[in-house]
This record gives sequence, C-alpha cells and structure tokens, in this order.
Amino acid sequence: MKTGKTLRVSIIGTGNVATHLSQAITASEFDLVHIVSRDIQRAKALAEQVSAKGIDDLSLLKSNCDIVILAVKDEVLTPEYLKRIPQDIILCHTSGTVGMSVLTTHAKHGIFYPLQTFSKQKEVDFKIIPICLEANSAAVYNALELLAEAISTKVYSVNSQQRKALHIAAVFACNFTNLMYDISEKLCQESGLDFDILRPLISETADKVQHHLPKDVQTGPASRNDINIIDSHLKALGNHADYQKIYKLLTQEIIQNNEEL
Amino acid sequence: MKTGKTLRVSIIGTGNVATHLSQAITASEFDLVHIVSRDIQRAKALAEQVSAKGIDDLSLLKSNCDIVILAVKDEVLTPEYLKRIPQDIILCHTSGTVGMSVLTTHAKHGIFYPLQTFSKQKEVDFKIIPICLEANSAAVYNALELLAEAISTKVYSVNSQQRKALHIAAVFACNFTNLMYDISEKLCQESGLDFDILRPLISETADKVQHHLPKDVQTGPASRNDINIIDSHLKALGNHADYQKIYKLLTQEIIQNNEEL
Repeated sequence: MKTGKTLRVSIIGTGNVATHLSQAITASEFDLVHIVSRDIQRAKALAEQVSAKGIDDLSLLKSNCDIVILAVKDEVLTPEYLKRIPQDIILCHTSGTVGMSVLTTHAKHGIFYPLQTFSKQKEVDFKIIPICLEANSAAVYNALELLAEAISTKVYSVNSQQRKALHIAAVFACNFTNLMYDISEKLCQESGLDFDILRPLISETADKVQHHLPKDVQTGPASRNDINIIDSHLKALGNHADYQKIYKLLTQEIIQNNEEL
Repeated sequence: MKTGKTLRVSIIGTGNVATHLSQAITASEFDLVHIVSRDIQRAKALAEQVSAKGIDDLSLLKSNCDIVILAVKDEVLTPEYLKRIPQDIILCHTSGTVGMSVLTTHAKHGIFYPLQTFSKQKEVDFKIIPICLEANSAAVYNALELLAEAISTKVYSVNSQQRKALHIAAVFACNFTNLMYDISEKLCQESGLDFDILRPLISETADKVQHHLPKDVQTGPASRNDINIIDSHLKALGNHADYQKIYKLLTQEIIQNNEEL
C-alpha cells in the first residue's frame, strides 16, 4: 500500500465503475485503501490490480479512511445497508439516479458521479470523463473536488435534480444512440453488407457535435423534408414494423424541429 | 491545370459532396478538369479552390474528359437533363437513393457513392470514407475503382438494392443518432447544464462500436429492464409528450431485443 498521501479513499463495489474508478485513483496522488465486496474473492481480485486491500467487512473502513465511494447497484443503497458503514467518514455514491438524501445516514456525504459508459473490456481515459459533484457542506464538496480533480480535468457541480435530467439526457445520447447503431447494423447484415461501411459515418456523426450543436448539423431526408425518400424508406422497412414505427416517429420529430426554427 | 495523368474527371455540382470530392480528386494522381454548375459564379468559385476550370455548359465536357461525376440533388437526375451530357464518357452519380438504371441514357455508367455526412464547415479525411461502387460493365467498374482507390482506402462493391438498404441504415446511424444528441442537448439546456458534460459520453459511445457490435455493448435502464428508473424517467419527461413517446418506443425496442437474445 502507498503512504504519504493526504486523503485516503475506499471503494465499495467491484463492477465497471468500481474497476475504472479504483484504477484512476490508484494512479493519482490519493491513497486507495480498501476495495469492499460481500464476495471477498472479487474484492481481493480487484484490490490486487490496484494495490489496495480487499475486504468484506464494512466495519474495517472505520480506522484508516477519509472518503468511502459506493460504486454499487442503486438497490443496495438502503438505510439498513448504509448504517453498517462507519460514521466518521465522507460517504458518497456514484449513481446517476439516486438523490443525495439517501445518504443522510451519514453526517458528511455527497455525490461522486462519473458520466460515462463503462465496459470492463475497454480502457477509458479517466482524465476526460466528466465527474459531477454534490455535497451536503462546503467542506465535503472541497474534499470531493480535490479527489475529482486528481483524476479528471472535467469536474462539474451538479445538484440532484440536474443529475436526474443529465441521466435522462445520457439515455438519449448513449443508450438510444447505441440502439440506432444496432438497427443500422441489422439492416446492413440483412443486405449482406459489412457493418464496417457504416463505422466511419458513426465516428464522424459523433465528432461533428463535439464542436457544433446537434441542431446545427442535422442532415438527412427528414431534415430536408424529402417526402419521396421518406416514403420509399418506410416502404422498404415493410418487414420490420418496429423499425418503421421508430423511423416514422423520429422523422416526425426532426420535421417538427425544423418547423420551429 | 495538371497534366500527365491518365484519367480525367469532371464534377457536376458545387454542394458539400462536390466540394469534398473535388478536393480529394485534385489531391490525387487524377486530373480534375471541370467543375460544372448552372451558376457559373459558383462553378468558378469551387474550380478556383481545386485548380480546375469552372463552366456552365455541359457540352464542353465532351472533348477532354473520361469520367463525369454527378454530385447534384436527386431531382436533377432526369433523362432530359442527363441527355445533355456528352455520350462518350463514363457517367456516374453520387446518390444514396437513386438506382443505377436512371443512367441508361449513357452507354458507360455507374455509381460513385461516398458514404459520409458532409458539412462545408468541417474538413474530412477522404482516405477513410467508404466509397460504394456499382457499374454496368467490368471495364467501367475498373475505371471507377481506380479513381476510388486513389482517394480512399475503403472501396466497396455495392449494388443498387444494397445501396438503398445502406442509405436507410445511414439514416439511423447518422440522422436519427444526431436527433438523440439534439434531445439530450435540449434536456441539458433546460436544467442549466452545459452540453460539454455529455460530449465525452457521445464520443465514447461511438468509439465503442468501432470494435464491437452495438448489441454487445448496449447499456442503460432499458437494457437492464430497470422498470423503476424507466418509470421515473418517463414521469420526469412529462412536459415533453414527444420525448416521452420516443423514450417509450426505444425502450420497448431494447427490452424486446434482450428477450430475443
């Protein structure tokens, strides 16, 4: 374990967020002390990767830890569970949906929400992942901010209400976007086309909105209100009632947006 | 004008596709001869950027040109218009939707369809843009392939039926995806959040499918069938009947996909 560091952090959880977060913290000037899991084998496996100690006993967090980060499923965050975590630490969770109020079991608490889609199989550069912070006092906020700025260059103050809106926005920007990719992949496959043909288009579409607003770079038949092409597409999607319905609804929305401009 | 090159190419049109394509061709070993437009000023303006000659008279294409690329709106591609283009050249268009049969006015014809979303304000690296080719003879195909391979590393043989499917797939992968970004941007704005918070997530979501299939990296409440979160999101979208409808339909589709796995 490393020494000589100011704030000591422990992480509860061994999933995607816990894995990436613990890797980022251990690479920072902060001390990563414990990885906690009910499953001691999983705790030890992750702890070994990040030079921490794997434990399954929450009471052990008491003596040598300043910040405890809950990177667990939302349903774990019950008062019964949280009360088992020692009081004299800063307790924060990483959930996009659960309000801060659930943490009132602890005098010092806050939110440490990294906004990203994590997969165990893909490395991420934590430096560019936005971390959204909220805290129940300025002192707690400052501590969380120190930690966040040690692992990322993008730290935002986001309250619980904003975080909920952000989570919904992320469902559109990430989960539903991936569904659009999925449908396009299936349409390629059906026509004997390699999905590789579409991959550069997918990259460019995401690149464009890095420096423009989406509404300013909308293209395609709906945006030109090209009824002939829209009709021919809907007809061609005849074998897919669900894709047809999605095509219609999203086309309507784009046309309506244009009319409002 | 450059000399000593084998095939001589002219482009009809001055829009986004014509602009990016003419820049790529002029940077290749091929000769870009003419830029043609009804509007001679626009023809000359683009021609000047790419060391070609701007003209407004289609009959001038006859004497010194091997391939003529139509980078014009679909509705321009009528027999009356096409008949005005000299016969003894290879005529091809760049449309994602118009079949090759429209070009039977010319003995040698084909399709030269670059699959990308072009904006005048953003440079693109043509080398990684897929070019989809089709031709009415092996000789014409070979000529188009030579040209395509001179400007891109990704050249595909795609017939008219496949190209139509590809165009529909591209509407999902690009136009509808951009709509998802647009909705997420508006949700951020409403909550006083900077769209910058979402931009890294958008990049990562597109990056993930560069090496994975979309269905293998689907995440989010719908993919976990997390009814509580889905309900709370739908409730929160109460002020946006249209977003609610889109959220519901796309969530249904993801849940249904999971059941089919």
